[in-house]
Amino acid sequence: MTFREDGYAAVDWAADYLERVADLPVLAQVEPGELSARLPDRPPERGEPFANILRDLDDVLLPALTNWQHPRFFAYFAVTSSEPGILAELIAATLNQVAIVWRASPASTELELRVADWVRQLLGLPEGWHGHIEDTASTSTLAALIAARHVTERNVVVCSEHAHSSVDKAARMLGMELRKVPADEALRMRVGDDLRFDDVAAVVPTIGTTSFASVDPVRELAERAHADGAWVHVDAAYAGPSWICEEERRSQDGVELADSLVVNPHKWLLVPMDCSLLWTSRPDDFRRAFSLVPEYLRTPEDAYALSEYGPALGRRFRSLKLWAVLRCYGRDGLQRILREHIRLADLFAEWVDADPDWELVAPQRFSLVVFRRNGSDEENEAILERVNASGELFISHTRLNGRYVLRLAIGNARTTEDDVRRAWEALKRASR
Amino acid sequence: MTFREDGYAAVDWAADYLERVADLPVLAQVEPGELSARLPDRPPERGEPFANILRDLDDVLLPALTNWQHPRFFAYFAVTSSEPGILAELIAATLNQVAIVWRASPASTELELRVADWVRQLLGLPEGWHGHIEDTASTSTLAALIAARHVTERNVVVCSEHAHSSVDKAARMLGMELRKVPADEALRMRVGDDLRFDDVAAVVPTIGTTSFASVDPVRELAERAHADGAWVHVDAAYAGPSWICEEERRSQDGVELADSLVVNPHKWLLVPMDCSLLWTSRPDDFRRAFSLVPEYLRTPEDAYALSEYGPALGRRFRSLKLWAVLRCYGRDGLQRILREHIRLADLFAEWVDADPDWELVAPQRFSLVVFRRNGSDEENEAILERVNASGELFISHTRLNGRYVLRLAIGNARTTEDDVRRAWEALKRASR
Repeated sequence: MTFREDGYAAVDWAADYLERVADLPVLAQVEPGELSARLPDRPPERGEPFANILRDLDDVLLPALTNWQHPRFFAYFAVTSSEPGILAELIAATLNQVAIVWRASPASTELELRVADWVRQLLGLPEGWHGHIEDTASTSTLAALIAARHVTERNVVVCSEHAHSSVDKAARMLGMELRKVPADEALRMRVGDDLRFDDVAAVVPTIGTTSFASVDPVRELAERAHADGAWVHVDAAYAGPSWICEEERRSQDGVELADSLVVNPHKWLLVPMDCSLLWTSRPDDFRRAFSLVPEYLRTPEDAYALSEYGPALGRRFRSLKLWAVLRCYGRDGLQRILREHIRLADLFAEWVDADPDWELVAPQRFSLVVFRRNGSDEENEAILERVNASGELFISHTRLNGRYVLRLAIGNARTTEDDVRRAWEALKRASR
Repeated sequence: MTFREDGYAAVDWAADYLERVADLPVLAQVEPGELSARLPDRPPERGEPFANILRDLDDVLLPALTNWQHPRFFAYFAVTSSEPGILAELIAATLNQVAIVWRASPASTELELRVADWVRQLLGLPEGWHGHIEDTASTSTLAALIAARHVTERNVVVCSEHAHSSVDKAARMLGMELRKVPADEALRMRVGDDLRFDDVAAVVPTIGTTSFASVDPVRELAERAHADGAWVHVDAAYAGPSWICEEERRSQDGVELADSLVVNPHKWLLVPMDCSLLWTSRPDDFRRAFSLVPEYLRTPEDAYALSEYGPALGRRFRSLKLWAVLRCYGRDGLQRILREHIRLADLFAEWVDADPDWELVAPQRFSLVVFRRNGSDEENEAILERVNASGELFISHTRLNGRYVLRLAIGNARTTEDDVRRAWEALKRASR
């Protein structure tokens, strides 16, 4: 078989998968170790045709996949790998650009800067910010904390008790001290009169926390942080894409004061994993923190590489999929999808609110609904495990003041009102 | 157009590109900013067909690509994105697994552990080592240094003056002190009687340095490091794949003593960017350094996620391409390709050595030849810029004892003896 024929077969497999994914269980219905037991212990000695890979995708791997492309995937934050993004990844792998320095891939470097700027404009962010792509928000936040420590020469990070675990993890990796500030009733970082940042390297407010999609008071925090000489890194990994809809920009208040900002197009902007955008209003500080050009990477051009703005030297051509998605949907196409997600979340929240057996436990924000069945934690956990085991939908949980609560996150482009209704019916059934 | 038809067109574009890549210039023949000037300043408002993306790949992006898949790409370390790897990336983007916890993608977690173990066996590494995939060696080394600092509670990193810049960069990012040890005449880290590691967190020997492919004395360094309580992280990012050929395992001496080891399948094992394998003989220490499971990620299964062994929480399905490549080539297919690369490098080195106008400047190792034209640094730099500007081949340089020297690295599966001969002829022409 030639590459071309294998490629058509792979496209057919992909197209068939996307057509049937709604009929597959959302959550993988396997036990730990079940797949491992079916994979050979020994490596292959001799080559075999690519067709065998496609066959074993169906026969061996499929049952062990949790189907993130399923329209009733509502766990964590639901995501979409859109068709233009998928095909762009095929092209990126074909070109295999390794953008270690500018001349190693002018296209990758310059396209990345340009599409980062396109998204900046689409989200209504300040002119002049410098944007580039990291793999995940974990890395973007790690990079921001490194820049903050480098420039402030301080070693403390401050965030809310509801900040994402990637802030904890970055601080731990870097050997920085983490201070967690309690939240108020609206689940926002509490800004008491005594909150000082004199010894703080970075304050990390979140817009759209993972547990509750709550929004920290960015403006107030940024003003105080800057007065005290601290860096402000805003984590809008999940909620940032909503700003493509002008009516959602109320959550953006104060973001223009950020020293750095992370927004994940692989979360809610239809781009396949992995694509995390990191902007900074202080690119020179990033470059000072990260740039290191050994002799074997020196070139005569007056041009820089984006590896001088983040941890990794080798960089793959991630901008290609963002370029393809932005062009094939356009601003209006993306707005339409995100507005529908927000509408569906509001609708689900109304159903919960109207039912005396259930309650909303957090203010309704973006496309996430946080709720619970009246009853014990055990009952709520049992409901979750029951619906997930059914394969009909997949939701996740968190805790609020020690109580087990359920999260339904809408974010897949294939999700319809009917899918959300089926989820609600299944939850009610599972609670009886 | 449907996804299926767009997909066939994307496969055709990819197949055509691979068929014609040898006729394109290797190094992009553009000036900095030339592509940027051709990309719209403003983001797209309305969606357009995917066909436009393929059209603009040809019309706009192609001249700004440095063609890493070209058979006469000899710069840095030459790499190959093989056909099974390319198609596996298409499938990975389609499935869009985000392996944050086991249940989020049992397939991704368990396949990654298994293929990491397959490569461990293929390379003759010790049984029981725990392997997982990071994006690049920069991240693998960063992760290893974090684990080393966590377990030793020390803050010093030691490497040779010829270690890769990613070691410097990781130490800088982490706020660790870096000590560079001078090399001997064979470009190996010099192990003097007074070399002590009492206060050292990690010693990082390299097998196959970037500049010269030289090999540090791993066994001696590891024995001393362990006696002094330091961690040993071995960087075999480039040269490690050569161990798939038993006759190349002489460079492996002492590796079995490593606490961690990085080898990049995206460098010399035909896997598309990005795929860096990180093994450790001390998985519990890695997990202690990185594991952090917030409430919203807790699940009842007795299973772990590979995000507990490295910096990022979100992980894409990188094992799929490694699985496809290992199966479609098998041990014997990969051996055949690597042996040919080593043979071609030896052949080129013979030609250089036999010509009185040229000289080899480092011992011949693996698939890298380091050499120069007799004459000034300026003449050698001019030769390099001349051949690169011709588009016929692409080489890079380094410095040895202050002298400008040329590097020719063989690592693309499409490279033939004729390509290497053309490179040699072009270099001789450019030197006249």
